Amino acid sequence: MQFSSALLENAVNEFSKLPGIGKKTALRLVLHLLKQDAGAVQAFGETVIRMRQEIQFCQRCHNVADGVTCSICDNRMRKQELICVVENIRDVIAIESTQQYNGIYHVLGGIISPLDGIGPDQLTIESLVNRVTKEGTQEVIFALNPNIQGDTTIYYTQKKLQPLGVKVTTIARGISFGGELEYADEMTLARSITNRLPVESYVSK
Amino acid sequence: MQFSSALLENAVNEFSKLPGIGKKTALRLVLHLLKQDAGAVQAFGETVIRMRQEIQFCQRCHNVADGVTCSICDNRMRKQELICVVENIRDVIAIESTQQYNGIYHVLGGIISPLDGIGPDQLTIESLVNRVTKEGTQEVIFALNPNIQGDTTIYYTQKKLQPLGVKVTTIARGISFGGELEYADEMTLARSITNRLPVESYVSK
Repeated sequence: MQFSSALLENAVNEFSKLPGIGKKTALRLVLHLLKQDAGAVQAFGETVIRMRQEIQFCQRCHNVADGVTCSICDNRMRKQELICVVENIRDVIAIESTQQYNGIYHVLGGIISPLDGIGPDQLTIESLVNRVTKEGTQEVIFALNPNIQGDTTIYYTQKKLQPLGVKVTTIARGISFGGELEYADEMTLARSITNRLPVESYVSK
Repeated sequence: MQFSSALLENAVNEFSKLPGIGKKTALRLVLHLLKQDAGAVQAFGETVIRMRQEIQFCQRCHNVADGVTCSICDNRMRKQELICVVENIRDVIAIESTQQYNGIYHVLGGIISPLDGIGPDQLTIESLVNRVTKEGTQEVIFALNPNIQGDTTIYYTQKKLQPLGVKVTTIARGISFGGELEYADEMTLARSITNRLPVESYVSK
């Protein structure tokens, strides 16, 4: 692409570094910003810079935070003895959006994946074990993606938690709401039969 | 979407104001920036702010410029007596990317569209007429999109240019390279027969 302005070209290059944004999309975004108020564009740039400079990670659960601990940990209305273990911040946001979970979190920062060179030491598993020891946690719920890496991470972490006598659970797998039985994969369908529930618990939801 | 950090939420909101960027994409972009160097994110924000504050519009052709006139107008290697009239900056970039055009431009800033409330006075048509009068232009090429608004704009502007005795042309319409005859619309196919070319001019390309 040929630009007649270096300022425009630099802005397009910066945008096209973002994931999933090619040169054409970057140009569309930059030309949109060019049409906005100078004040609005300044707010955009400053908000992004400020976010990166000032954001912190909660010392307790490793979620994003505006201070030393995050607003979820600080919320005393939430069950402090119930920890949901997730891979990353995006999963926290997904679970929070359901508005059904009233405990707190622990963000692992990834999952055990030897092929990608990620071992248990790069994750916050040690910090989770310390938390459970100190905080008198009653239950740890694993909400990890259902693949080999997720299962390995659950297995490894559960071994570490076992001596502490805490209850360890994992979120339910099964046919999704609106899912058709005939299109479900065999493993999911098989598991959903093995882990069948009394009809009362289904109706009450 | 529920965020545990106001800094994160503000950044996501800013990104989701951009066209075609929803909340989920905005979150993905922000989390990507969160993983980058603070320096790189600062460069991103400052480049965007600087672009909006310092960019100017060429006083001659209304293209984006880093100074009073744009680098295309300033380039004395280009034919100053050949003006290509386009709707917006994006069209300039598209034509420049072909590396086949050696004249200069005139950016209208839109096309005549009464339904959208855009009349000739909101466009730079007057400025084009002044240029042609002063600069001794030999040819004006219209490169507008082939629709009613584009045709109206060509018709209106051509009427204004007629008394000046300048040659007025429009880019060729026809079957695109790689296009299949049977899928072409009737109007394009009909026009491509009416405006047929001697084979020599086709082969030489």
